[in-house]
Parts: sequence; C-alpha cells; structure tokens
Amino acid sequence: MPYRAPVSEIRFVLDRIVGFDQVAGTELFADATPDTVEAILLEAGKLVETEIAPLNRGSDQHHSRLENGKVRAAPGFDRAYAAIRDGGWVGVASSPEYGGMGLPFTVSTAVNEMIAAGCLALQLKPLLSQGQIEALEHHASDALKALYLPKLISGEWSGTMNLTEPHAGSDVGALRSKAEPNGDGSYAVTGQKIFITWGDSDLVENVCHLVLARLPDGAPGTKGISLFMVPKFLPDENGNPGQANSLKVVSIEHKLGIHGSPTCVMQFDGAQGWLVGAPHGGMAAMFTMMNNARLGVGMQGVAVAEAAYQHALAYAQDRKQGKTPLGNTGIIDHADVRRMLASMKADLFTARAIGLACAVALDMARATGSAEWEARAALLTPIAKAFGTDVGNEVASAGVQVHGGMGFVEETGAAQYLRDARILPIYEGTNGIQAMDLVARKMMDGGAAAFRLLQEVQDHAAEARTSQPDLAGAVWNAAEALREATEWLLAQDLNDRFAGATSYLRAFARVLGGHYHLKAALADPARLPLAAVAIKRLLPEHIGLLAQMREGAAGLYDLTPELLAS
Amino acid sequence: MPYRAPVSEIRFVLDRIVGFDQVAGTELFADATPDTVEAILLEAGKLVETEIAPLNRGSDQHHSRLENGKVRAAPGFDRAYAAIRDGGWVGVASSPEYGGMGLPFTVSTAVNEMIAAGCLALQLKPLLSQGQIEALEHHASDALKALYLPKLISGEWSGTMNLTEPHAGSDVGALRSKAEPNGDGSYAVTGQKIFITWGDSDLVENVCHLVLARLPDGAPGTKGISLFMVPKFLPDENGNPGQANSLKVVSIEHKLGIHGSPTCVMQFDGAQGWLVGAPHGGMAAMFTMMNNARLGVGMQGVAVAEAAYQHALAYAQDRKQGKTPLGNTGIIDHADVRRMLASMKADLFTARAIGLACAVALDMARATGSAEWEARAALLTPIAKAFGTDVGNEVASAGVQVHGGMGFVEETGAAQYLRDARILPIYEGTNGIQAMDLVARKMMDGGAAAFRLLQEVQDHAAEARTSQPDLAGAVWNAAEALREATEWLLAQDLNDRFAGATSYLRAFARVLGGHYHLKAALADPARLPLAAVAIKRLLPEHIGLLAQMREGAAGLYDLTPELLAS
Repeated sequence: MPYRAPVSEIRFVLDRIVGFDQVAGTELFADATPDTVEAILLEAGKLVETEIAPLNRGSDQHHSRLENGKVRAAPGFDRAYAAIRDGGWVGVASSPEYGGMGLPFTVSTAVNEMIAAGCLALQLKPLLSQGQIEALEHHASDALKALYLPKLISGEWSGTMNLTEPHAGSDVGALRSKAEPNGDGSYAVTGQKIFITWGDSDLVENVCHLVLARLPDGAPGTKGISLFMVPKFLPDENGNPGQANSLKVVSIEHKLGIHGSPTCVMQFDGAQGWLVGAPHGGMAAMFTMMNNARLGVGMQGVAVAEAAYQHALAYAQDRKQGKTPLGNTGIIDHADVRRMLASMKADLFTARAIGLACAVALDMARATGSAEWEARAALLTPIAKAFGTDVGNEVASAGVQVHGGMGFVEETGAAQYLRDARILPIYEGTNGIQAMDLVARKMMDGGAAAFRLLQEVQDHAAEARTSQPDLAGAVWNAAEALREATEWLLAQDLNDRFAGATSYLRAFARVLGGHYHLKAALADPARLPLAAVAIKRLLPEHIGLLAQMREGAAGLYDLTPELLAS
Repeated sequence: MPYRAPVSEIRFVLDRIVGFDQVAGTELFADATPDTVEAILLEAGKLVETEIAPLNRGSDQHHSRLENGKVRAAPGFDRAYAAIRDGGWVGVASSPEYGGMGLPFTVSTAVNEMIAAGCLALQLKPLLSQGQIEALEHHASDALKALYLPKLISGEWSGTMNLTEPHAGSDVGALRSKAEPNGDGSYAVTGQKIFITWGDSDLVENVCHLVLARLPDGAPGTKGISLFMVPKFLPDENGNPGQANSLKVVSIEHKLGIHGSPTCVMQFDGAQGWLVGAPHGGMAAMFTMMNNARLGVGMQGVAVAEAAYQHALAYAQDRKQGKTPLGNTGIIDHADVRRMLASMKADLFTARAIGLACAVALDMARATGSAEWEARAALLTPIAKAFGTDVGNEVASAGVQVHGGMGFVEETGAAQYLRDARILPIYEGTNGIQAMDLVARKMMDGGAAAFRLLQEVQDHAAEARTSQPDLAGAVWNAAEALREATEWLLAQDLNDRFAGATSYLRAFARVLGGHYHLKAALADPARLPLAAVAIKRLLPEHIGLLAQMREGAAGLYDLTPELLAS
C-alpha cells in the first residue's frame, strides 16, 4: 500500500485547529501565504510519495553498512537524499542569509512529518542537520557560520549531534570527553561517543559533528561542558573538504529498527574542533538543538502513526473474514476492528495537532518575541514529544494487530513500523524525562502557562456548548479535572511530581485531544464522528491517569528494590 | 542477565491465591502433593535455567532454516529438546495409560510458563504436542490413540495444528482443504495451510499434523469441517516411521520474532490421513485443542513478562544515571523508573494469577465434573489469553524503555522479548476474538459465571475491610462497577457488546488483579506495597474502560470507511 501524503489533513490542522494564520500574519513570516504553504506541502508530498516512501522496506532489509571504516548508505538512499538536498528541503526554515527558505518552522515541521512517514531512517539525516543549523545560527561565531551554514543548509554537508557516552546517557553531565586548546583558536577533542545517528555516510561530502566535551578548566557536571564543531574533513582555504580529521567510526549498532540509519560509535582522537558558543556554555547551545529536535521526534511519531494507519486501513478494507454486521464486507466492518482504526485515527489527529500547535507557538515566539508564546512552546514540547511518540508506537502496534497473522510476517511491512517506532520514546530524552521536564521545569512559572492553555480549552468548550453540549461538556469537565490536578501537582515536592509525571503528561494530551477534536467537529460536521470517538471513548482515560498521579512517590518507594527482586 | 525460575513465586500463587489445594484434594489428583509439586517445579526450573534459557538469544540470531525441503532447527535446540523429551516434560498432564505423568493441568501450565520464559520459540514445540495429545485423548479412536499417544507423550514425535489457510484465518469456516475417502478407512487430504508452527523439524522422528479439511459431503462453513491425523511418515506395522507421506513444507516465514520457531507453509497433496472424532465434527475436536492452547498462550505472555521484567530489573539496579532521591544509586531509585518496574511486576502477578486460576478451574472441572468449575474455566480462558498476552507486550516494551538507548540495540536482548511477544495477542484467536468470546459465548449463561466470580471478589473484599479498609474498599467498588457493567452488557445487542468487548475484558482483568493482589497482601504483609500499586494506581483504569464500553457500536459505525479514509 503506497503512502499517500496527507496534505489536505495537514492543511486542515494548520488552518482550522492550530491557528497558523497568526504566524502568516506576522511581519517575519509574511511570505508564508496560504498559496505558498499549499505549494510547498504539495511539492514535498509528491517527493515523498515518489522518491522516498518506496525505499522504506528495502532500506530495512538492506541496512546501511560499515565497510573499511566508511558507512555505505542503503541502496537508493543516494538518489533520495539528492532529491531532498536539491529540493532545498533541509533549509525550509533556515536563514535566507545562508541560503535557507526562511519559512516558518511550522512549515518545516509539516514537511518533515511527511518525509519521516516515507522513510524514518532517511529523514533522520536532514533532521539532525536542521538541529545543527539552528544551534549554529544561535551560538556560533560569524566565521563558523559563514563556513558551515551554507553547506549544511544546502544539504551538501550533514550534521550530527554527539552527546552520549557509555556512562552518560540521560545524565549528560557525566561525560568524559575532553577538549584541549591547540593554541591557534582550535581545540583537540578526544573521547568516545555512542548512539551517533548518521555518524558517517557516503551521501554527503562532509559530516559535521557537534561534540560535547569538557575543557581543562571545565567544572564537573553539566556546567563544565562545552560544544565543539568537529568536521570529518577539515575545510581548506576555499571552504572545501580538505584533510581528514582524527576521528573514525568504530562500529555501527545492530538495532531493532531504523536499519537504514547508521547508528555509530565514534572515536575522536585529538580531532581538531572549534568552540561553538561560550566556553562551558555547551548545554545551552545543545538545548537549542534538542528542544526543536524533541518536537521533531514527536512528529516522527505522528509520521509513523500516519504511515502505519494508512497501511492497516487499506488491509482492513480489503481483507474479508466472516460475516460482518453489514454483510460480506471487509474486516473494517467488524466492531472491534472499527474500534481499533477509529482510536488510531483519533490519536493520530491529536498528536499531529499538539505537534503543530507547538510549532506555531515556536514561530510566534520568534516572530513576536512574546514570552507567553515562548512559554506555550516550552509547555507543549514535552507533550508533543512524549505523546506523539507513544501514539507512534500504539498505532504501529494496533496496525500489526489489524493485520492479524500477516502483521507478524515482515513482508507486509506492518511490523517494520513497530520496530522503527520503538526508538522514538527513547531518544532525544526518554518520555520519562519529558514528563519530568513538564512537571518541574515547565511548571517553574507556577503553572501559569498550563493554566492559560487550560483556560483557552475551557473558554472554547463553554462557547461550543450551544452546538455540541455533550462533547463540549465532557471537554470542559476534563479540563477542570486537569486544572485541579495541576494545582495539586504544584503543591507537591518534586519527587512526588516525578512519580505522577508520566500519567499527568498523558492526561494533559488527552484533554488537548478533546479540545482539538471539538474544534474540528465545529469546523467541519464530517469530523463529528471522529471527535465523538476521541471525547467519549478516549478522553475518559484521564480519570484513571489522574488518580494514579495523585498517589505520589511514597508508595513507590515502599516497594523497595529488595521487594521488586523478590 | 540469566533467567531465574520463579518457583517460589509460582508456589505462592498456587498455594495462597488460586487455591491449588482444592485440586490436590480431589481423588483424581491425589498424587499432586505439595512435595511432588515442589519437586517438579524445582526440577523444571533447573532445566530451564541451565539448558533452555541460554539458547534464547542465539536462536533469535541463527534461525531455524529450510534446507532442501527440511527444517533444520536452530543450533542447540537438539540438546535442549532432548532434555525436555527425556525429562518427560511433554507429558506432565497426559494420561498415565499412555506414558504421561497424569499430574494436574495446573502443574503443566506452571512448568510451561518457565520453559516459555527460557525460550519461547522452543517451547512452542512441546506446547503444540500437548494440544494435540489432548485432542486425541478426547476424540480419537482407540487405534489412533494406541498408535500416536505414546510417541507424542514421550516426545519422540511432535504435533502440529493445521487450521489456517490464506483466506481462512479467524474465519476458519472458509477453509478449502479437502479430504476424500481412500476406501480403506483412510482419507486423501489435499490443501495448503499457512502459519504452521514447527510444521517440520529435525528434532523428532515424526511430525504429526492435525489437519482441518472438508469431506465431500461436508456442508459449507464450520459445520462441514472434519479433523484428520496426517503424519509426515506413515507408521509401519510396528508403529515406527515408515513411508513418507505426500506433504511438504513449501516455505518458512520471515517473522518479527520467535525466529527459532519455524512457521511453515504446508502443502498436502492427497496425503494419507485418518479421521479424528466424528465426520464434520472437526471444530469440536479443534476447540478442545484450542481452549487449552489459549490458556497456554496467555501463560506465554506471563513467561515473556517474567523474563523481560527480570532483565529490566537487573539493568535498573546496575545502571547509574544522575542523582536519585536516595543518592548515587541505580536508576531503579528514580521515581519514574520505579513506577515502570512496579507496574510491570504488579501486572505480571495479576496475569499469572488469572492464568493459574483458570488452570485450577480446568482441573477442578475435570476432577469433579462440576458445571460451575467448567463455567469458571470457560469464563477465565479469554481473559487469561488476552490480558496475559497484552501484559507480555506491555512489560516487554517497558523493559526496552527501562534500558533506554541500550534497549533498542539487539545485543542487550530486551528488544527480542518485544519482538517475540508481539505474536501472542494474535495467534490462537486474536485478542479481539477473545474479547468477543467473553461477551457473547461466555455470557450465554446470562452472566451467571461472571456474577458468581464477582460475588466471590466482593465477599472477599468485604471480609478484608477490617484489616485493609482502603484497598478492600477500592476492590469492592470496582467489582460493583464491573457487575453493573456486566448487567448493562447483557441487555445490549450483540454488536454493541462486541464494540465494548476489548474494554470490558481489560476492566475485568483489572478487577481480578485487585482481588488477587488483595489476597496476596493479606497472606503476606511484604506484598502490601505491590498490592497498593495494583489497587491504587492500576485498578482505576477500569473507570475509563467501562465508560468506553458503554458507548456501544453506533458511534463507531458513524465513522464510515469513507470518513476513516478521508
């Protein structure tokens, strides 16, 4: 079943749900007219349908490989990456000064969703470059910008993100990599990094590594970490790839999924690098990169959900088993199969709306400098990441289930979505860390951003009561329960918040789902049945989640490691 | 991390939760004394720890293969299967008349759990034989019994189950395989079957296929289906494997998991077979086999959950990341990690208790002929299958999450549990079909069996109120909500029941989990913290589930295929 780019669905969410018109109404993004956005999305959709999606299965079977120290990309990736590069798709949201399109991040996010749905493993390459471009735009010196940004934005070079070490995963501050000044303004970077996505490839002329390492006078922990640009080939006087740097790919991982994406162990042996941002300011620079990457990963979840949903829907329409209540029709007409597909589609809509609402908030913050928009984006980022990636997994798993026995056979492709999706709740900060971020850092404003958003949800529900009393009432009540839960949360110690963080985050996403679906039903009556599924069947999940949240931490620690092991 | 057989935990569930003493108190199972059961479980546990579990990773990487039409088992399976065979582990619950141990099915179920935890792919082989043995014990002629049972029970031969055809999966009645009388009492069986687990192997002298096919005068649908014994090698006059039969393995599937288990496409070309049971009575015979196989599969879910839990727990104890609330301890002390492990362990306990309670009911029904016990077993079977296998997947997925990035790398083994577990909610009747079975066939008694069980739950909770008021109150209330939901369900049309079936089944499992955990806490105060997790944090999920159930079917059909595709 070939992937069909959901351009009109994305347009609907942009135009009717998340208020993209506000972005287009700013001076900064005045060029992002409806016609331009439509053209961009259609063009990207066509690219994905014709050049990218057809490679997805093959790149799962014929992995990227390490040969004589060099990574060879999966067959066909050369042509597909060239299409991404030549279409300018890496630089949709990048600065026009260095060759980017300068369009809103929201548009780039929507384009990225489609590319990821076509082939998640390949999309990781431009996604990492985009994160690096943003970090450089915000933190690099003008000289570094001039040297690297044009090549990265054009896609001639690509970027990687080198954080993790064997003993420093979620705890980045524990890293041991070092950087010594060379005396010429550059540094000698030494250390081993693991889980480096697209750490090398034959698709680009040069691979630019952003590496976290500690200067000789760097304090222990995250405060003493600096960020360095360490290219595979040192640029020569013309800015072209010159001498090879002292770094290499040690091995690539044998993974559950995204086989087309080489995950590298990298060794830096006094490799020459240049400081990005202030000394010991590496975490700030990295966070620029990570925050947007978190939304990007959330949208990867949406992407896999869309692809897996389309795949399962097509199967359920074709496959006949037994008599359905509607006659000798496809299994789609069995109530339990219909229930699965309805839940998949409802959650896919919710996850996409949350992600694009987050992107809109980021664009508005940038275009207007508004602290409220910035807080909105900060609040939505962990929800978009965690809920989006959970939905990616849940929809992919339901997709396997809809296929029955055929879902367990690799040839159908349903299982690949599940394998590919499984990394999403882990990388770019596990979903547990997202939840902790939500209840701690994102509540440092005393819950102001959360309460503001919930007020919007309740105001909208109050207005909607005249036309959709049942649905609107349910949304209002759920938002009220979440408001009370937020107040409860704010009154707790940090570890009590952490104990309920995952439940709280999901309950928040459920309430937002109710809100966005209610908006959709009001905007288009054809969307009422799906909204009813989301609000009447899925939203009540928040009750159990909030009950779980209110239990706090103590009960968990009563269950000691000894008891857990007994 | 090597698998540790949970013998004392299984003993606790048998002795203190599911009332195994009642089974041992019957005349039929008088030999199943506590000492005998203890010795059996310890012996089986040792076998699994030393001979079986060490093969699990290797058999994932070095699959079973098809070579020149013959299946070659994964390396090491020959020795491990020989140990299962020679220990008499195939025939734990089989008739002593033909060489079995004649022990309760409950004991066999507990042994099977451990073998499956050690290596799911290998355990499928004896599991299928056991199903076949039971079908033959109940339905075969004395001549067939005398010829096949001793060899199957001893493990010299193995059994398979041939239902599925490309167009007849869940809809068995659509099958096209044919059987023509040969005139000598045997039949010529012709047709293609798919998804045949261990359809061939070099581990046994002979493979005995039970094949569903239609006689010339067989009516369409399930009523015209008959069951045939079709051996790979026709037994000679001494009952030894003689001439090869006209059947072959066409191919084996490339699957998401259980790579060590060859899943075959079988072709029967006028293969000689013998009728098992009455003409056109194939479904009845097959149901004998399937019902117990369903519980067996539910316990496979428990098995994977146990193995994945042990694996994740060990990792969480060793792995250090950041400062926990208790100091520089393992990630097990982070609240969100503790929450995951606590939920995993709580659900593992629930799933095992449901499965063993179902096994006890089967034994009691057999030993006493009681219709109430039979109804109890029938009621619990779909819950044991669906909830057990869902828990297998959820715990395996949480196990990957606890491992963080290392969980996505195949070398750690965490991902294999997830891949292996994914078939469990599909085979032996998808979990959707289990749920439909629960709300339709298992409610044909007007809900009597369900109400009886809920009454026991409530009576127990009422007694427990003096010592554990909070937990007991929560369990009583949840059981009351489920009782009301059951009454609602019984008043609905069948398709409204089907629409809510999956939610209802899970809510039922949640209530049973509350009940069993409450029993555990009363039996052993050290189990109170885990019971609190199950009852305070997980049980509230039933509220959302029952709300979803009460929505019925209409809303799902409002969401037409056209809307689902738009």
